[in-house]
Amino acid sequence: MYEEKLRIVPLGGLGEVGRNMMIIEWGDDAVIIDIGLNFPEEKTPGVDYVIPNISYLEKNKKRIWGVILTHGHYDHIGAIPYILDKIGNPPLFGSALTLGITQRRQEEFPLKPKLKTNEIKEGDKIELGPFTAEFFHQNHNVPDGHGVVIETPVGNIVNTSDFKFDLTPTNAPPTNFDRLNEIASRGILLLMSDSTGAEAEGRSLSEKLISENMDALFGKIKGRIITATFASLINRLQDIITISEKYGRKVVVEGFGMKTNLEIARNLGLIKSKKGTIIAAEKAADYPDNKITILSTGAQGEGNAALMRILSGQHRNFQLKKGDSVILSSSVIPGNERSVQNLKDDIMRQGADIFHSQMMDIHAKGHAQQDELRDMIQIMSPQYFLPIHGQYSMMASHAKIAREEGVPQNNIALIDNGFIVSFDKERKMNISKRPLSVAPVMVDGSGIGDVGGVVLHDRMGLAESGIFVVIAVIDKKTRKIKNSPDIISRGFVYLRESQVLLTEVRKKIMEIISKGGKQNKDVKEIKPEIKSKIESFLYSKTGRRPMVLPVVIEI
Amino acid sequence: MYEEKLRIVPLGGLGEVGRNMMIIEWGDDAVIIDIGLNFPEEKTPGVDYVIPNISYLEKNKKRIWGVILTHGHYDHIGAIPYILDKIGNPPLFGSALTLGITQRRQEEFPLKPKLKTNEIKEGDKIELGPFTAEFFHQNHNVPDGHGVVIETPVGNIVNTSDFKFDLTPTNAPPTNFDRLNEIASRGILLLMSDSTGAEAEGRSLSEKLISENMDALFGKIKGRIITATFASLINRLQDIITISEKYGRKVVVEGFGMKTNLEIARNLGLIKSKKGTIIAAEKAADYPDNKITILSTGAQGEGNAALMRILSGQHRNFQLKKGDSVILSSSVIPGNERSVQNLKDDIMRQGADIFHSQMMDIHAKGHAQQDELRDMIQIMSPQYFLPIHGQYSMMASHAKIAREEGVPQNNIALIDNGFIVSFDKERKMNISKRPLSVAPVMVDGSGIGDVGGVVLHDRMGLAESGIFVVIAVIDKKTRKIKNSPDIISRGFVYLRESQVLLTEVRKKIMEIISKGGKQNKDVKEIKPEIKSKIESFLYSKTGRRPMVLPVVIEI
Repeated sequence: MYEEKLRIVPLGGLGEVGRNMMIIEWGDDAVIIDIGLNFPEEKTPGVDYVIPNISYLEKNKKRIWGVILTHGHYDHIGAIPYILDKIGNPPLFGSALTLGITQRRQEEFPLKPKLKTNEIKEGDKIELGPFTAEFFHQNHNVPDGHGVVIETPVGNIVNTSDFKFDLTPTNAPPTNFDRLNEIASRGILLLMSDSTGAEAEGRSLSEKLISENMDALFGKIKGRIITATFASLINRLQDIITISEKYGRKVVVEGFGMKTNLEIARNLGLIKSKKGTIIAAEKAADYPDNKITILSTGAQGEGNAALMRILSGQHRNFQLKKGDSVILSSSVIPGNERSVQNLKDDIMRQGADIFHSQMMDIHAKGHAQQDELRDMIQIMSPQYFLPIHGQYSMMASHAKIAREEGVPQNNIALIDNGFIVSFDKERKMNISKRPLSVAPVMVDGSGIGDVGGVVLHDRMGLAESGIFVVIAVIDKKTRKIKNSPDIISRGFVYLRESQVLLTEVRKKIMEIISKGGKQNKDVKEIKPEIKSKIESFLYSKTGRRPMVLPVVIEI
Repeated sequence: MYEEKLRIVPLGGLGEVGRNMMIIEWGDDAVIIDIGLNFPEEKTPGVDYVIPNISYLEKNKKRIWGVILTHGHYDHIGAIPYILDKIGNPPLFGSALTLGITQRRQEEFPLKPKLKTNEIKEGDKIELGPFTAEFFHQNHNVPDGHGVVIETPVGNIVNTSDFKFDLTPTNAPPTNFDRLNEIASRGILLLMSDSTGAEAEGRSLSEKLISENMDALFGKIKGRIITATFASLINRLQDIITISEKYGRKVVVEGFGMKTNLEIARNLGLIKSKKGTIIAAEKAADYPDNKITILSTGAQGEGNAALMRILSGQHRNFQLKKGDSVILSSSVIPGNERSVQNLKDDIMRQGADIFHSQMMDIHAKGHAQQDELRDMIQIMSPQYFLPIHGQYSMMASHAKIAREEGVPQNNIALIDNGFIVSFDKERKMNISKRPLSVAPVMVDGSGIGDVGGVVLHDRMGLAESGIFVVIAVIDKKTRKIKNSPDIISRGFVYLRESQVLLTEVRKKIMEIISKGGKQNKDVKEIKPEIKSKIESFLYSKTGRRPMVLPVVIEI
């Protein structure tokens, strides 16, 4: 039995943007907030997703009372199909839209157990063992999202989840400051607040302003409009539909994720459109260009998105043409700058116009910026503060704001994933000295966690200079090489133009084996010798270091 | 003999930022402006540099009268060691600093022929066959840079090279508008102007403002200062030295490129420092922290730069510590956003402070923005306009400015590399319908151009899912397999944990070979069968597509 302490265990989302997952424990009882994924980066080639490491939960059996899902973005719900069955398929608690998106995603994994979902509304109280959780409405760029306040044996803790303050949002009620004040009035032991926007000064733009900019842009455009954004930015989808209706444009929806998200949100009444506004792609040809909006995925230059197919002439119904206007309506995700630039260039080369956030504020920043974060800390007046969601520099900036708002330095936990923040019955905070092992788990194809440091290191090495496989067959008795050695190489040099090099390499290998034979060397000794000598030889000749793999077969 | 037309042949720098190289021809006579390189990107793994494709010059023998070097940045001079000897080692014309940096780089290539350099000063006229070239001072973020006006048989053409207008620059005279007006008064047939800043509104910041911000920052910092920037931003180096002197700080210079550039510039009197300001790293310990500035490379998070070694504890003299302040003083190059973010996080995790352009304007934008570009077009009042240097979207934005300034649409050449712009004796412009073949040439190790589409495609495939080599030895007579097949794999799965999979693969291979043997199949038929069947099998088991390479050896 674990000590009766409140323990906060962040498994993901700290020191990174994405992959949010946090455990709240009291003794052996636990609840989880969010189970999200992250997308791969340059150093994880071939990886589909990165998910939280749950070895802590596997080693320390807890009674998991439930998983609280704050909103329907993949960085908060996306790892559920990979993780939920491994932790005993606990019940999920979330809003209608959050659960709808979660369920739809689960359908892609037919072998996984059915989810136990429980729809929660603003103000509902959920008893979860020693905890009582309560949702409160938060504005973001997807509707039906919530923060959560949890009553624990030592006090109330608040997790804001992703939020911004917005008095004129699209598709949702404005921020309810009375409600936030009411929660704060109960006394807040610990505030855990979204740091994503903590390096941006001032306040985030209201969604209304973003809509107005988009509206003004639509008003000026004469031809066909192609808008590209994330399928998950449901409020932006609503804007584009509403504004299209205003200008008498029909809307064609392109991209699988876009279609399914729209369908879920429309079924819940969270996206509103007039009858007949949304039409099938085949029907677009019945309308003049200035009566058509194509709502598509691909604003980050993703190679397989609908927008790319429209650009490259591979789309069944649409082909970009002069007079079209493409509106990229999402911020560029770090790392995608170059593909977005290439996208813009391609669009312009084809004679179409492009409108992008650099030129107009038509993109959504869904996260509270410095002044809003300051307000949130003022409202909640927490005894302790834990910045969550963000790169370390963002969390550090957030911690600075908390200090400025009067939270004592020692009451701020500026930590990375895996550090445990605990509170004893006297409400004294302690931070573990060393982090848990929370190395990110890679999902690659159907494999989860089987791609680790060695495999990724090899992939990066292969990408750098390719591979050079040497195959030699040796006669067991005579110890002599049979035939000339085979060489297979990929990603190193263009082999057909490198015959001289290959001849030299073959000669070298035959020398090594022949010498080894005379010295009665074992194959096990010859292999590393081939590897090191051929590696240096290739480097001396080409300045490159392909991975040399010697195969010596004794017959 | 070629037609007597003026021909502008851009081999690099159009539709991209970097790799600038342009040929100016009249009949069989040619001059070249700049021979630069570009840096590799995500789609060119393992490549060191990308250089211009000069097959046009190799196929069309020209009398090359000289190469005009506008300034000492590698995107303008960096490809000289790879290209110059292939085009007959023509004479180089450039300023003292430009030639100094070019010579120093050439020393890294001892086997290459000696460069024939000719130092040129503002106002010097160079006779180059049918052309007369004249330099004019331009402000940028490296001193001693120039634009060039070339008198041709059909009129004067101007190449601005990289420039900004600056009335209060560091280390250089201010923009000389009288001189620009004097050049313009000769009548300008064609203006070719730098588009890098054409998407940025307003005007670039004066270097004075940047210095003042840096000065204010230095004034506030109590501990050691580590400034990271590009070695090529020589004006920034001057600023840091001057401001350090003001605050009584000694300066340690770290990083090879930084040291050599400083040395060249100081020898030419283009960097000024008091005696004793610059000290050796070993001497730093003799001074208190608040009297030390470390001037280092690594502002882009480059793994091998001095800053990284200071952070990771691998530097001989310095180790980052609490109380240090790191100033990153360069804009983030697209594609480096993530490594710069990680750099910031690492610095903050170690308790040091970080100052970055997002927080303060301490970075240099060396390129003219929209209002300056507009001014340049107004001053030059060219008959024709060719936007150069920049992504297509930047050049398109620049073309729009030219239209707004009264250059007729038909007189603007918005083109990519390889299109030829020609002017006949009636000064009528023609643009070639199709581009020359100017596919970028990759430099990888000592190989130039031997890494092409196939090799890069393989490298990217290898990075995605690795390689899986299957080796089977077959008895020539019995057509049966000898032993169990060998399998070598890298970057696919962690082999030690995949024994079951490997056993299944071996079984599959033996089946294929045994069936083939019975059917008297040739090895040539068996190999593709192994490849395709093993590929599908591995995909069905893992959801991954490693490159499967079958080796079948007959004995």
